[in-house]
Amino acid sequence: MIRKPALAVVGATGAVGAVMLQIVSQHEDVWGDVRLVASPRSAGRKLAVRGEETEVVALSEEALEGIDVALFLVPAEVSAQWAPIAAAKGAVVVDSSAAFRADAEVPLVVPEINPHALRVRPRGIVASPHDTTLAMIPAIGALHAEFGLDELVVSSYQAVSGAGRDAVAALRTQMSLVAGTELGTGPGDVRRAVGDELGPFAAPLALNVVPWSGTVEDGGWSSEELGLRAETRKILGLPSLRVSATFVRVPVITTHSLAVHARFESEVTVERAHDILATSPAVVLYDDPEAADFPTPADVVGTDPTWVGRVRRAMDDPCALDLFLCADNLRKGAALNSAQIAEAVAAELASPASPGNPVRGRSGSL
Amino acid sequence: MIRKPALAVVGATGAVGAVMLQIVSQHEDVWGDVRLVASPRSAGRKLAVRGEETEVVALSEEALEGIDVALFLVPAEVSAQWAPIAAAKGAVVVDSSAAFRADAEVPLVVPEINPHALRVRPRGIVASPHDTTLAMIPAIGALHAEFGLDELVVSSYQAVSGAGRDAVAALRTQMSLVAGTELGTGPGDVRRAVGDELGPFAAPLALNVVPWSGTVEDGGWSSEELGLRAETRKILGLPSLRVSATFVRVPVITTHSLAVHARFESEVTVERAHDILATSPAVVLYDDPEAADFPTPADVVGTDPTWVGRVRRAMDDPCALDLFLCADNLRKGAALNSAQIAEAVAAELASPASPGNPVRGRSGSL
Ligand SMILES: NC(=O)c1ccc[n+]([C@@H]2O[C@H](COP(=O)([O-])OP(=O)(O)OC[C@H]3O[C@@H](n4cnc5c(N)ncnc54)[C@H](OP(=O)(O)O)[C@@H]3O)[C@@H](O)[C@H]2O)c1
Ligand SMILES: NC(=O)c1ccc[n+]([C@@H]2O[C@H](COP(=O)([O-])OP(=O)(O)OC[C@H]3O[C@@H](n4cnc5c(N)ncnc54)[C@H](OP(=O)(O)O)[C@@H]3O)[C@@H](O)[C@H]2O)c1
Repeated sequence: MIRKPALAVVGATGAVGAVMLQIVSQHEDVWGDVRLVASPRSAGRKLAVRGEETEVVALSEEALEGIDVALFLVPAEVSAQWAPIAAAKGAVVVDSSAAFRADAEVPLVVPEINPHALRVRPRGIVASPHDTTLAMIPAIGALHAEFGLDELVVSSYQAVSGAGRDAVAALRTQMSLVAGTELGTGPGDVRRAVGDELGPFAAPLALNVVPWSGTVEDGGWSSEELGLRAETRKILGLPSLRVSATFVRVPVITTHSLAVHARFESEVTVERAHDILATSPAVVLYDDPEAADFPTPADVVGTDPTWVGRVRRAMDDPCALDLFLCADNLRKGAALNSAQIAEAVAAELASPASPGNPVRGRSGSL
Repeated sequence: MIRKPALAVVGATGAVGAVMLQIVSQHEDVWGDVRLVASPRSAGRKLAVRGEETEVVALSEEALEGIDVALFLVPAEVSAQWAPIAAAKGAVVVDSSAAFRADAEVPLVVPEINPHALRVRPRGIVASPHDTTLAMIPAIGALHAEFGLDELVVSSYQAVSGAGRDAVAALRTQMSLVAGTELGTGPGDVRRAVGDELGPFAAPLALNVVPWSGTVEDGGWSSEELGLRAETRKILGLPSLRVSATFVRVPVITTHSLAVHARFESEVTVERAHDILATSPAVVLYDDPEAADFPTPADVVGTDPTWVGRVRRAMDDPCALDLFLCADNLRKGAALNSAQIAEAVAAELASPASPGNPVRGRSGSL
């Protein structure tokens, strides 16, 4: 391929899409044509990308014609329907939804951790993990490479933008309803003040935390909690890794946090863990409680890496570490990871002779 | 003792003190005289208790004269100095601070779980656990009695009122500064808006979470995280229980939440755990995700019990449960538990002939 690959950003108008347009603009020499796609509701809107006002077109077979790489940043049901169509038209699809993450024929890729997985994509589709998995994997993957991961216990502190732009609008409204009041001291007073302004959540988020995200699955688990387990196993190639997670939404706009208890096969030390984290790609070590150096979402938002602090060896288990980490769910958690995958595909397309390259045509055989 | 016992509420003007005055007013026939005590700053202020405006007196030797039971609801350093003085004057001290929780000669009591511990108090002092421990113990203690507790991994979502009334004021101010803005999307933008209004915290709490509470201890642990471990071991009588905790402050006014991964010695089922939790004192089971029934701080605040939901058996460990619980840190977490202890002492003082009763005079021998 001599011309630069053509890119479609499907879901350009969403929360992830907005960050993707920034990244595409910053890395402007990677792509040839860039086509912006969304639902028919957005057709005709103009969005700035690479310094140009560009018209959004409605998702259709025609909109996917002549595309080399299609970034899908849309709800899972839209991806489930349209990603195979894009692949059949010859595009490599990079999907950020949950639609294909569990599909054995779709690689689930974090470029710093399992870049090799990208090469085998029989359906012409590559999936990017859930934002919560992505917040954790750069750090946990690096520690696994040294110590051998045995078990994870994870609690999340998830930002509302992980649930999309409507969720952000709902929290903004709720914040205005409770600020300047004395609410939050009597049972249900915040719920009454918030009324119908719950957005996509089951309970208010302002002055509250809500222990739920995803759909209800067997045994009382949420789809997102089980997703973290399945995705971590798949990315790290550890099919019997023990994982327990409790997912909790918190009143933060953007940047997920996780408290992680990780047990390894060998003994750990904080010193060695610090060394590993300080030198791992996509990870920043920020860990000095004496100086109040630990990551918080308000400090991490808008940055690319996963920030790790509060690294401690478990008091009662020489093989376990406790730590706290934050990552911007719209950047590494979504747009950035998908962009990294797409750019790796673009590089591969630019060198078609490299051995072991997946045959592009195969994706068309679906 | 024929007259009703005289009570001193030391710290009557604080966050816990305010709730204590409500409880003392509701249980008005327990006590004879009720004396309200605080720092010299508050002397002369009037507060309502049992329907009467009552003058606050400054803490002094004189203020502790003739008191049978002294509730200490003051900073730990004030308790450390004054509780032994109150005990030497013949009062039984019930202390809600951290000052005596680790003292082998001071029982640490949760009346539903270890009421027997109250009887042996060689220093004349009884301690009430940290609010985070108290949020968890009614539920975990009940499950322990059935399944035998082996290990706990705990992540907290702590309300600001756990850090006192100044912390509440700081979050209220911060909420007003960020509501109605587009803040929370760029690195440090919330921190700049909040400026000096951090209150007792190292970072903003509005639109943020902060993975720290307590003082810095060895190995990167916070005093509160280690406190949860030591207190749980002491209350349950399990000196080698394995405990890992990560404590995180969240923008909630009152009511702490905890995500708990509890491993037991025997196999667990959700059904049996539900039965136990539904019938345990001081616990409410609220667990039906299909109906969005799980506890949140906004619904639990102002109520007495620990609310438990999201009860799941670990996917990869038949002996472990994952659950989420909420408890009002000012009620069961502080004032209510201390009041329960004080009322148990009052009942004991009313029946001085009961066998095995601690000799009141011993506390004066300190
Ligand atoms: N937010 C995160 O942190 C995050 C992280 C990782 C993965 N993800 C995943 O990324 C995807 C997008 O998330 P988001 O947060 O950006 O959601 P969002 O803010 O709600 O945006 C949804 C996007 O999908 C488009 N869309 C919806 N229905 C469509 C249809 N029928 N045809 C074509 N386009 C359609 C919307 O276009 P219109 O404007 O025209 O409606 C919009 O561009 C989801 O699958 C999500 O699970 C999100
Ligand atoms: N807040 C919780 O959820 C919680 C839960 C469990 C345990 N505790 C513990 O309970 C205690 C009180 O907490 P809080 O949240 O109520 O604190 P707070 O709101 O800051 O109130 C502190 C109280 O202590 C009094 N005080 C301070 N210095 C004093 C002195 N030198 N002499 C006499 N009184 C003095 C204050 O009186 P002035 O008004 O005169 O200053 C006020 O009544 C602390 O040890 C805390 O760790 C709190």
